[in-house]
Amino acid sequence: MAFRAARYFPILEWGRDYRRDTLINDLIAAVIVTIMLIPQSLAYAMLAGLPPQVGLYASILPLVAYAIFGTSRTLAVGPVAILSLMTAAAASKIAPQGSEAYIQAALILAFLSGAILLVLGLLRAGFLANFLSHPVVSGFITASGIIIAASQLKHILGINAGGGNLLEIVTSLIANVGETNAPTFIIGAASLIFLFGSRKFLKPALIKLGLPEKAAAIITRTGPVFAVVASILAVAFFQLDEDGVRILGEVPRNLPEIGLPAFDREIWMQLLGSAALISLIGFVESVSVAQTLAAKRRQRVDPDQELVGLGVSSLAAGISSGYPVTGGLARSAVNFDAGAETPAAGAFTAVGIGLATLFLTPYLFFLPQAVLAATIIVAVLSLVDFKALRQVWSYSKSDFSAMAATILVTLFAGVELGVTTGVGLSLFLHLYNTSRPHFALVGQVPGTHHFRNVNRHRVVISDTVLTIRIDESLYFANARFLEDTAYCVVSNRPDLKHLVLMCSAVNRIDASGLESLEAINLRLRDAGIKLHLSEVKGPVMDRLQRSHFLDELSGNVYLNTYDAMEDLDLDCVQAAFSKDAKTTSPEAIPCPSLTLAGLERV
Amino acid sequence: MAFRAARYFPILEWGRDYRRDTLINDLIAAVIVTIMLIPQSLAYAMLAGLPPQVGLYASILPLVAYAIFGTSRTLAVGPVAILSLMTAAAASKIAPQGSEAYIQAALILAFLSGAILLVLGLLRAGFLANFLSHPVVSGFITASGIIIAASQLKHILGINAGGGNLLEIVTSLIANVGETNAPTFIIGAASLIFLFGSRKFLKPALIKLGLPEKAAAIITRTGPVFAVVASILAVAFFQLDEDGVRILGEVPRNLPEIGLPAFDREIWMQLLGSAALISLIGFVESVSVAQTLAAKRRQRVDPDQELVGLGVSSLAAGISSGYPVTGGLARSAVNFDAGAETPAAGAFTAVGIGLATLFLTPYLFFLPQAVLAATIIVAVLSLVDFKALRQVWSYSKSDFSAMAATILVTLFAGVELGVTTGVGLSLFLHLYNTSRPHFALVGQVPGTHHFRNVNRHRVVISDTVLTIRIDESLYFANARFLEDTAYCVVSNRPDLKHLVLMCSAVNRIDASGLESLEAINLRLRDAGIKLHLSEVKGPVMDRLQRSHFLDELSGNVYLNTYDAMEDLDLDCVQAAFSKDAKTTSPEAIPCPSLTLAGLERV
Repeated sequence: MAFRAARYFPILEWGRDYRRDTLINDLIAAVIVTIMLIPQSLAYAMLAGLPPQVGLYASILPLVAYAIFGTSRTLAVGPVAILSLMTAAAASKIAPQGSEAYIQAALILAFLSGAILLVLGLLRAGFLANFLSHPVVSGFITASGIIIAASQLKHILGINAGGGNLLEIVTSLIANVGETNAPTFIIGAASLIFLFGSRKFLKPALIKLGLPEKAAAIITRTGPVFAVVASILAVAFFQLDEDGVRILGEVPRNLPEIGLPAFDREIWMQLLGSAALISLIGFVESVSVAQTLAAKRRQRVDPDQELVGLGVSSLAAGISSGYPVTGGLARSAVNFDAGAETPAAGAFTAVGIGLATLFLTPYLFFLPQAVLAATIIVAVLSLVDFKALRQVWSYSKSDFSAMAATILVTLFAGVELGVTTGVGLSLFLHLYNTSRPHFALVGQVPGTHHFRNVNRHRVVISDTVLTIRIDESLYFANARFLEDTAYCVVSNRPDLKHLVLMCSAVNRIDASGLESLEAINLRLRDAGIKLHLSEVKGPVMDRLQRSHFLDELSGNVYLNTYDAMEDLDLDCVQAAFSKDAKTTSPEAIPCPSLTLAGLERV
Repeated sequence: MAFRAARYFPILEWGRDYRRDTLINDLIAAVIVTIMLIPQSLAYAMLAGLPPQVGLYASILPLVAYAIFGTSRTLAVGPVAILSLMTAAAASKIAPQGSEAYIQAALILAFLSGAILLVLGLLRAGFLANFLSHPVVSGFITASGIIIAASQLKHILGINAGGGNLLEIVTSLIANVGETNAPTFIIGAASLIFLFGSRKFLKPALIKLGLPEKAAAIITRTGPVFAVVASILAVAFFQLDEDGVRILGEVPRNLPEIGLPAFDREIWMQLLGSAALISLIGFVESVSVAQTLAAKRRQRVDPDQELVGLGVSSLAAGISSGYPVTGGLARSAVNFDAGAETPAAGAFTAVGIGLATLFLTPYLFFLPQAVLAATIIVAVLSLVDFKALRQVWSYSKSDFSAMAATILVTLFAGVELGVTTGVGLSLFLHLYNTSRPHFALVGQVPGTHHFRNVNRHRVVISDTVLTIRIDESLYFANARFLEDTAYCVVSNRPDLKHLVLMCSAVNRIDASGLESLEAINLRLRDAGIKLHLSEVKGPVMDRLQRSHFLDELSGNVYLNTYDAMEDLDLDCVQAAFSKDAKTTSPEAIPCPSLTLAGLERV
């Protein structure tokens, strides 16, 4: 029982050994992360089309929740760019930005996505996240980064613009670029230059000045704070807000109210699909960050418990006027580098953001929106990765198509359609690829017991025994292909007596595969050919023994292919050991399906 | 060019050798099939909720089309029970039965499903039919058979009843059973008894009387004709139609009009999904019948060209006032047994049905609907196969769930939802199963070069080298599982120096799998453990060489596991050849994911 409690409440484990040293380290990290998180939460709330305080609220209770339920020691939970974009896309379907219903929709999204993650976690169903393949996630992040950056340009220029996809955003920007507000543009451009510059040059410069690398990295990451302070002073001093520079304005100085989001069955049903996508994308992103950081300290992250931690975290956002949250990459890296040792650092960060909400927001009154936009642009452009596209292209055309489709659809038809297209296409291509498996005709390597592909090695083959190695599990998607191939062999080899299926690469045979084997067995028997199996794996054999197939099999099951050949064509085996063994040159097989879809694809 | 023409027009091939003998055999078969097909087409049209002539029309032009484009020598195309049920389900969504719009919807379904098949055929995309696994198809047919039989009981009783699913049909039957029409019930029950009886007893009796088996089978199959003739005579003589026995009535004596179905974008879009299901189910059914018959004569059926043949056939139905058609099981078997040698038999059958439409229908005026219903019930109940359910249960629980879900959803929520649920569930379960692949820790079998599962064999293992055999391709669905497992090994084996992944069962590694391998490699290196691969297959190795992985790999790639062990822990290998080699007893591995999801699932 005690073991189970610690499994679902990881705080019980690390809390036991909590000491003064740990406390100090966690506090230092919390201060640094708080400083970084204040402008971030305001910026991401703006990106999501929500009032600034929603970003702050999403950075309080969710952090406490993760500290109790999360398994990563150093993950920093809170608002992130991609989920802000997805929230905006989903909430816009319910109500226009700025309306009360829009804010409610964001709350509901947080609540629903939290509930989905929690249920998946309790069901230990984290494998569902596997349906998002690496190329799809990477393509989605790249495309989202581009859309987010483009959508923020209006704030840099100080103009009104809109649009749901890249084409609309760019068109709208071009149409309105004439109304650019000069002071806004100067602030925005200066911030961009400062932020990009500090990323590129500040860290090396600080290291040169003698700072340790970690400290340099942390100072560089908190660069936005300098831009924030400088721009507030500039706007306040020159009264630039009267020249049309849009500012943050007044942020309510309350802590979030606690309560369930308003229930409306229709709206909740409408948001359910979006919430599911948000939860999966958030989970995949967060887990990979958490695992990378954990591995550096030989710690482990339990993916199923992470579902619980992130789920409770988003639920907490949903009941405390926040919006969907997850673990952020940059913020977690800062937390890690700053020396956070336990999730308590997250709870301390929550306290910091709570204090900032109560006491700091008046000083942020003059903060220009252009600076927030600049921090977003700099953050998301670092996510854009076209190199991955090139690497995937050279490695696998299937994966490349899924990735390219994800990017294009996300850019030009929206984020939700982008993810679902990517997932659908990668599933389809996987099934397509395994539905036309690699087959090899094998022969004996002279002087050995080994059997190898006739197209890759000089081997000895028999006239009466044909041995085929199937390089795939036999399941419904390729059952018919297997049958076609087998019948093809029959119709082309009148002298054939035995067909041996070498099953060393067959990891499972489902009921469809079994039915195909049964059909092949019967039809080959009618044609006077015996069907044999060799090198069947333990688990596959266990299962075959539960069917009638082995009773009906016209031939035998051999432990290995050599035994099979010794039994079925001893002369040929002996010839393979003689000095002048006659080996094949790569042989063309007169069967279109075997040649085209099988052997030639090697 | 000549070769390509024959590929798309198989008639060019068999037509060349057409001789007088062939003609006579085909003509005999055509006469027998025509006799069988007349009541069948009337009955299936009634089942589809269409006027009787639509069934006849669906048995004329489509047969000619298949004779030109089909690759099976003996497949008999025409209306079938399952597609009639699916047509009724789909057309009912557009308009009520009996309306002109309902008939149009059936036409559009034929046209659309034909177009879908034709396009798939031209794209050589027959593999799409593979998504319908054997258990799903078998479950669907069983459930459809039950629904069809239940829906026809009202005709046997002579009452009004309706309902879209089994529950509704049964409720409606029970509610109206009091209005049973006695003469109708007598005719219906007598027909059922006669038809079931002739199936069971007529064939053995005829064989006993000295008839050859084939002739006996054919006569048995044409049993419905006797019921038809006898019941017509009875109704006409006793004027039973005036006692409430519903009769076929007047059938228009025209040949079908040729023309495209009326185009209405909205209706066509609404019917597209149903047409896709109809085309796939029709194709899967037909191809398996065609392949079974072809194999008996060592002929081949080209599944991609079958798509073309069946597609043109359904298109022909769509432009000639018919409804969706495909190859029927019973009818094709009769055609085969009656000695049909080429698809010309189908064309002759079409002529027969055309003549029947023009000259025979007046004699069918008094044909009771109860007799047609009885022929349907007897035909479909032979499709119901609960034994398959038991067999699949004992073989694979995954396949069983897909099959059971298909049956239950088809019975109680409709045919279309039934098929899609089955397909969706079988895809999901396949991905789920491969997402938690079978892993085995392997050791050396003493005195040999072989490495086997420690849980199945007494083997020698090393303290510093851990060898894991992954029994699955590495792809996105299991990439994360692989990582989890690898990190688990690290966190439990402080003395480990080398991890060898034995890849003999890895048939492909996609980009997600590659990224996981890269991550494992880096993280294990940080922990002072080298990662090695062994027994990587040719195609997989070719692909890995196109990535940077092999440059970054901390360890080596070995041709086989023995080489790896010899290189990494020679002492252990030598110990395995000594007389007193210390072998393992099955070892518990202190890693939850490896134990629970991997090794224990053996």
